[in-house]
Amino acid sequence: MTTPTPLTTDLYQLTMAQVYFRLGIHDRPAQFDHVFRSYPDYGSHQAGYCVAAGLEQLAEWVKLARFSDADIAYLAGLEGRTGPLFSADFLDWLRTVSFLDGLRVEAVPEGRVVHANAPMTVVTAPLAVAQILETVLLNLLNYPTLIATKASRVAGRARGRPVLEFGLRRGATGAGDPGARAALIGGATFTSNVSASQRAGIAPKGTHGHSLVQALMALGSGELGAFEAYADVYPDDCLLLVDTIDTIESGIPNAIRVFERLQKQGHVPVGVRLDSGDLAHLAVRSAHMLDEAGFPETTIVLSGGLDELSIWQILTQIDRESSRYGVDSTRLVERLSFGVGTSLITSEGASALDGVYKLVAIEADDGWRPAIKVSETPAKVPNPGRKQLVRLYDQRGVATADLLAVHDEDIGTMVSHQLLLRHPVDASTVRALEPAEVKSYETLLTTVIDDGSVVAEFPAIDVLRARCAADLERLDIGVRRLVNPHIYHVSLTERLWDLKQDLIATAR
Amino acid sequence: MTTPTPLTTDLYQLTMAQVYFRLGIHDRPAQFDHVFRSYPDYGSHQAGYCVAAGLEQLAEWVKLARFSDADIAYLAGLEGRTGPLFSADFLDWLRTVSFLDGLRVEAVPEGRVVHANAPMTVVTAPLAVAQILETVLLNLLNYPTLIATKASRVAGRARGRPVLEFGLRRGATGAGDPGARAALIGGATFTSNVSASQRAGIAPKGTHGHSLVQALMALGSGELGAFEAYADVYPDDCLLLVDTIDTIESGIPNAIRVFERLQKQGHVPVGVRLDSGDLAHLAVRSAHMLDEAGFPETTIVLSGGLDELSIWQILTQIDRESSRYGVDSTRLVERLSFGVGTSLITSEGASALDGVYKLVAIEADDGWRPAIKVSETPAKVPNPGRKQLVRLYDQRGVATADLLAVHDEDIGTMVSHQLLLRHPVDASTVRALEPAEVKSYETLLTTVIDDGSVVAEFPAIDVLRARCAADLERLDIGVRRLVNPHIYHVSLTERLWDLKQDLIATAR
Repeated sequence: MTTPTPLTTDLYQLTMAQVYFRLGIHDRPAQFDHVFRSYPDYGSHQAGYCVAAGLEQLAEWVKLARFSDADIAYLAGLEGRTGPLFSADFLDWLRTVSFLDGLRVEAVPEGRVVHANAPMTVVTAPLAVAQILETVLLNLLNYPTLIATKASRVAGRARGRPVLEFGLRRGATGAGDPGARAALIGGATFTSNVSASQRAGIAPKGTHGHSLVQALMALGSGELGAFEAYADVYPDDCLLLVDTIDTIESGIPNAIRVFERLQKQGHVPVGVRLDSGDLAHLAVRSAHMLDEAGFPETTIVLSGGLDELSIWQILTQIDRESSRYGVDSTRLVERLSFGVGTSLITSEGASALDGVYKLVAIEADDGWRPAIKVSETPAKVPNPGRKQLVRLYDQRGVATADLLAVHDEDIGTMVSHQLLLRHPVDASTVRALEPAEVKSYETLLTTVIDDGSVVAEFPAIDVLRARCAADLERLDIGVRRLVNPHIYHVSLTERLWDLKQDLIATAR
Repeated sequence: MTTPTPLTTDLYQLTMAQVYFRLGIHDRPAQFDHVFRSYPDYGSHQAGYCVAAGLEQLAEWVKLARFSDADIAYLAGLEGRTGPLFSADFLDWLRTVSFLDGLRVEAVPEGRVVHANAPMTVVTAPLAVAQILETVLLNLLNYPTLIATKASRVAGRARGRPVLEFGLRRGATGAGDPGARAALIGGATFTSNVSASQRAGIAPKGTHGHSLVQALMALGSGELGAFEAYADVYPDDCLLLVDTIDTIESGIPNAIRVFERLQKQGHVPVGVRLDSGDLAHLAVRSAHMLDEAGFPETTIVLSGGLDELSIWQILTQIDRESSRYGVDSTRLVERLSFGVGTSLITSEGASALDGVYKLVAIEADDGWRPAIKVSETPAKVPNPGRKQLVRLYDQRGVATADLLAVHDEDIGTMVSHQLLLRHPVDASTVRALEPAEVKSYETLLTTVIDDGSVVAEFPAIDVLRARCAADLERLDIGVRRLVNPHIYHVSLTERLWDLKQDLIATAR
């Protein structure tokens, strides 16, 4: 990895840092919460949860990033209206900044389910350093969390069948690797992206595209010639794209001819990919033809404009249409894979996570003070101060709420009595939980960086994917549904609620 | 710039390349067209054109990319079901690949208006090399074109006032710089992204965020103290964010107090930024208060969830509401700037450009042969063969159509007679252009890379932005409108139409 530049930031982080420096408060410990305010809304369908991702990249960035001499020289050349924007003493200080020094990061680990208005990352650092971290932290965490979330929705509709991430061509320039990694965490089985696969330690997947068939057609060999050429090179990995001319009239019959030859030679053909047309109908017809030809085990990969809704619809249609062709729908589903491109890598319909990074506390001479921002929109008022975040599970082991408490509240004692859960905004909404309703609870924020070093372990992708699946299992099915999901409770303790109201009143 | 890895690709480009290698056709010249099929559709509004961007990055990539020993070693370790996926002789060849060798790239230059179904990039290269280029080319061009397009829409609604790109925190991880660059080409005036500004040679812009005010409030200085601290550091660049507590009750009055002090000290205050609430209403109220206080020249920056539609609406509301507060709406508009974040960097509502890269011709022993892909969707059938792309202008100097012709057709002669424009798909739609209706025409594709070297010049961002503005001026206003734009004609010559029909018939 190359050294990342801290110039990947918004200018105002640096101009604010200079004000802190001039006031002599740049070194004061401050706490910022990274929190998203709403779940992705894809228009016709909505998320009821998110999946955390990107933390390992944040830790890498923090370890490596430094203002280089070239960076400092560039900043020294920036002009305001009447002179240099940055003074020499500030730039001298900036040159010495190591982002790790005095940094503490607590975060909900990657792969875990996270909820709106509950901090997923908490940064404590010298004020100016924490300020400069804002932009890069949001750039490194918001997008992967968005994509892991989308992947979990897509994979959740695939009935356990493999989901292949195919989006590199359509994703944002340079975002292919973080996007693919997040997709793998959220539930994609493989990606076609070679570089991302290498980084993730997972085999890249893919077959061939239309151009192979087109090239051999233009050179006179036709689709069959293209399939034969592919089979000759990959006799044991032969998966053929069958829609360059016509799936049913040409592609499948030609694939079957090639599969028959492979079988005679002792090879096991892998399958076909359908990339256009009525995919459910073509899958049924293709399965029927492959069954009849003696290839009931071959895979059928579906691709082309897929997302969570279209996969759901395709499987529903297959359930209903298979019997008309004498195909067993259960067996057909068991041979499917789904290639998902654009909609996954761009989180189509909800192109950004609205994650923000807000100052919630700062250390004054007499100790920590909570910070607030009042807003005309009550939901945008941050939950102030240093806090704990715990997830409460009911008797079934289902997550029933995420609870935000003041940092020194004793959660163990609280859950042994009746616990009042305050809605973060609406004063009239209070939910009472009896001790019998809370089977267990857990702290969600774990320490990632402390006292100048990265202390968290970053597990392999398959561990993160399993962690995500386990969290989804413990989520109410209503929260997981695709359309109009149940609202998961993120609540405040009475004490935190009171603190928030006091600060709002004081600010106003 | 670090050496880019060609592993930023889909696996199937490499598996196909190996098939070409095995067949001995990997070195045959082949032509691929990069073309998008439809304009971005944002849901409630739609684009009628796009703005090309990303080409300079493609040229850089092609110059620098090489398969490193580590890349080759990684590929050598990839396993199929029964053995290595790639053979040693193919990997030996891959190691020798220089993407520039034998490469020719023609493209519509950056900043120019481009249209659906007209190739914006044409690659001619040895078949296997051209194939491997597909993914990276699409990754480097689709997203910037999408963002330049969005920027041109946003800037087009800003009545000539500055548009500031603010999206780094919400854009895809790693895509901040290409996104900001594209936004600048399409019409954004500045970006807050320091790194992108540095690369573009444009000053980064920004002021301060809520955290500065929050921190000083928590430390006892209040909003006024924060404003004073900022003004002390930036007396001649003082632009204050006024919505941390309440824009009208607190922010503007405090800003005015600070501006009065600055003025007494001989400084010229810059202005205020409004980031929440009813921005049109608050802009009018703020302008009124600033006017009354003797600061009629101060800037008012609006930000927070802006896009082309909301800017349009804000300006419409300002036109109507200003007089109620005795504010001159024309003068108010002239002091506005717009900060646009999420919607611009993510092209909210249309998160991907559907740009594809399709084989259209390949050289056989007897010369070039056109290639085709038949599809169940007629609009997805590529226009085959080696082609020319010209833009026709009418007597007003307005672009009237983009015309695709076979590579050796004589356009000059054609426009001196009645010219038949064929719809690319619909046989019954033919438009006749008389010579008097074509005032001029120009070739759109220019040579970027030829014979192993980059031959195009890549102008500075302001040149590209001016080029974009000039093309927009020559576009029919109906094509430019935000909602339900007029469909611009992209047409085929009779000869190209006949060639396409022949190839489709033969393929079927």
